Amino acid sequence: MEFLKEYVQAVEEEIQSLQLPDRPAYLYDPQRYILANGGKRIRPVLTLLAGGMCGRSVEQTMPAALAVELLHNFTLMHDDIMDQAENRRGKPAVHVKWDSSTAILAGDALFTRAMMQLQNLEDEVDHKKMSAIFLDGINAVCEGQALDMDFENRVDVSPEEYLEMIAGKTGALLSASLQMGGVVAGADDEVLGNLADLGNTLGYAFQIQDDLLDVVADPDKFGKTVAGDIVECKKTYLMVLSLDACNKEERKWLQECLNNKPIDQPKVEKVIDLYKELGIIEATKNKVDGYYSRAESILERFGESTYKQDLHKLIQTLKTREY
Amino acid sequence: MEFLKEYVQAVEEEIQSLQLPDRPAYLYDPQRYILANGGKRIRPVLTLLAGGMCGRSVEQTMPAALAVELLHNFTLMHDDIMDQAENRRGKPAVHVKWDSSTAILAGDALFTRAMMQLQNLEDEVDHKKMSAIFLDGINAVCEGQALDMDFENRVDVSPEEYLEMIAGKTGALLSASLQMGGVVAGADDEVLGNLADLGNTLGYAFQIQDDLLDVVADPDKFGKTVAGDIVECKKTYLMVLSLDACNKEERKWLQECLNNKPIDQPKVEKVIDLYKELGIIEATKNKVDGYYSRAESILERFGESTYKQDLHKLIQTLKTREY
Repeated sequence: MEFLKEYVQAVEEEIQSLQLPDRPAYLYDPQRYILANGGKRIRPVLTLLAGGMCGRSVEQTMPAALAVELLHNFTLMHDDIMDQAENRRGKPAVHVKWDSSTAILAGDALFTRAMMQLQNLEDEVDHKKMSAIFLDGINAVCEGQALDMDFENRVDVSPEEYLEMIAGKTGALLSASLQMGGVVAGADDEVLGNLADLGNTLGYAFQIQDDLLDVVADPDKFGKTVAGDIVECKKTYLMVLSLDACNKEERKWLQECLNNKPIDQPKVEKVIDLYKELGIIEATKNKVDGYYSRAESILERFGESTYKQDLHKLIQTLKTREY
Repeated sequence: MEFLKEYVQAVEEEIQSLQLPDRPAYLYDPQRYILANGGKRIRPVLTLLAGGMCGRSVEQTMPAALAVELLHNFTLMHDDIMDQAENRRGKPAVHVKWDSSTAILAGDALFTRAMMQLQNLEDEVDHKKMSAIFLDGINAVCEGQALDMDFENRVDVSPEEYLEMIAGKTGALLSASLQMGGVVAGADDEVLGNLADLGNTLGYAFQIQDDLLDVVADPDKFGKTVAGDIVECKKTYLMVLSLDACNKEERKWLQECLNNKPIDQPKVEKVIDLYKELGIIEATKNKVDGYYSRAESILERFGESTYKQDLHKLIQTLKTREY
């Protein structure tokens, strides 16, 4: 995303100038490793854009943006242990490259380091309010992750429960990212409410779109196995919608599949056929479009600025992404 | 400790009135469980006493005290995973009663909840400074834990390195606990410096005394196996002092023991004999006494109050403890 390059570059430079101590190496090497391992830096860019829309410079908003990015990487470090994920962004996860204990501890320290960044904001910034929003966001992320873990052992997750889960796991940190940009600028509660709303809405849009792409993406562009979520029996939006919409017999069959993962290719095809029969793919597309439209209309509540234009472009780019 | 009962009771009541949400149960049940499982509540009492010495009431200081206690329990939840400890205060550790993933996540949320308590302090309190001291303390605890993990695989830990480790693992949170009481009262940097100094000094005293009691405690009073640290080849203060003071041959023998844990009873006896020959037990006793005396003299810098008297009694009680 060329138009975001300047912001991403600024975030990268800030990460590189963090100057984490050298030792204990056990504590700081894993933090350096995960932070150097890239990522799209979407969350800190959202913070910078929100700060900009509310009248603050990239430089003034940066400590909050950096806090958000560090926090995000902390959640990845711990999530990868919990999910037993081997790789992260094409490299061994921290708990694989080192071990689980190291990943737990380095994650705790990265969480601490994230909170510490808020100390670098200008004295005029309401530190108490900033902390409150950040911490509420983190807690909601933990709640989302707990629901997600709970869902793994269940075959009766409802669409409402699924939405509650992704509101925490994906939306809460996007919402906090945007609000924190607002707090840097001393924005009032109405503006903060709009930023929160925008973040939550983008969270729904992005996550449900992720679920959709798993099924509809062009295999040549997608970069991972199409229908991988179905193979792994993940409770995606499409799956929980199907469980809700199908008849008793189909539900029994679907739940049997979910109880015996991974499922084989013929069954995967049959699940996709069921999605089509039930109109799930169309309904999901509409849901995603609806959230992106809503995000656009929330954005319209803000005054014109280059930051707003860039956020508009970002939403457009996300909306039309194919992977 | 009868004279502390009132403070401990106030902390217990505050914990009971926390009102953590019911669900997701995966997230909140483990937090409730560890918080209900007692503990001496020494750290929050230190916060209350420091706040009192600087002129604030128990009620005014309580949110900071609660933050400290929640933080301490978070560190226990994660430490027990890393140390593969089965039990905590006579009950199954969280990662045993549930599983490691649950303990990681609930710990993260408890850390978050600890920070959230600072929101409940009166508006006059310098929130930014309070956060800074708390976070520096947490980071130092992480550094101490990282050094401790590093020491497990080493047989050449020096007394200086050992002191650096316990300064983080034990002293940093005691220091933060006391300073946070001072920040509630708007204490100046000199007073905060004294409180930090007192906490660090008590940390050294308490931890080295723990190491000493393992060897010299009366088995009837101790409540755990005497010389258990030697059996487990822990790098205690006595052990690292011995490694430093013994001759080449003795060092070779000791390091061989450390590389083959657990060691048998005849070897344990021989280690204790070596401690005696080298004057390690006497030197350690002197070290502990020195730190407690230093703590007393730092305390003298504060004006008279019942809080100061109670802290004086607490130091006396700790100093003369036999288990």
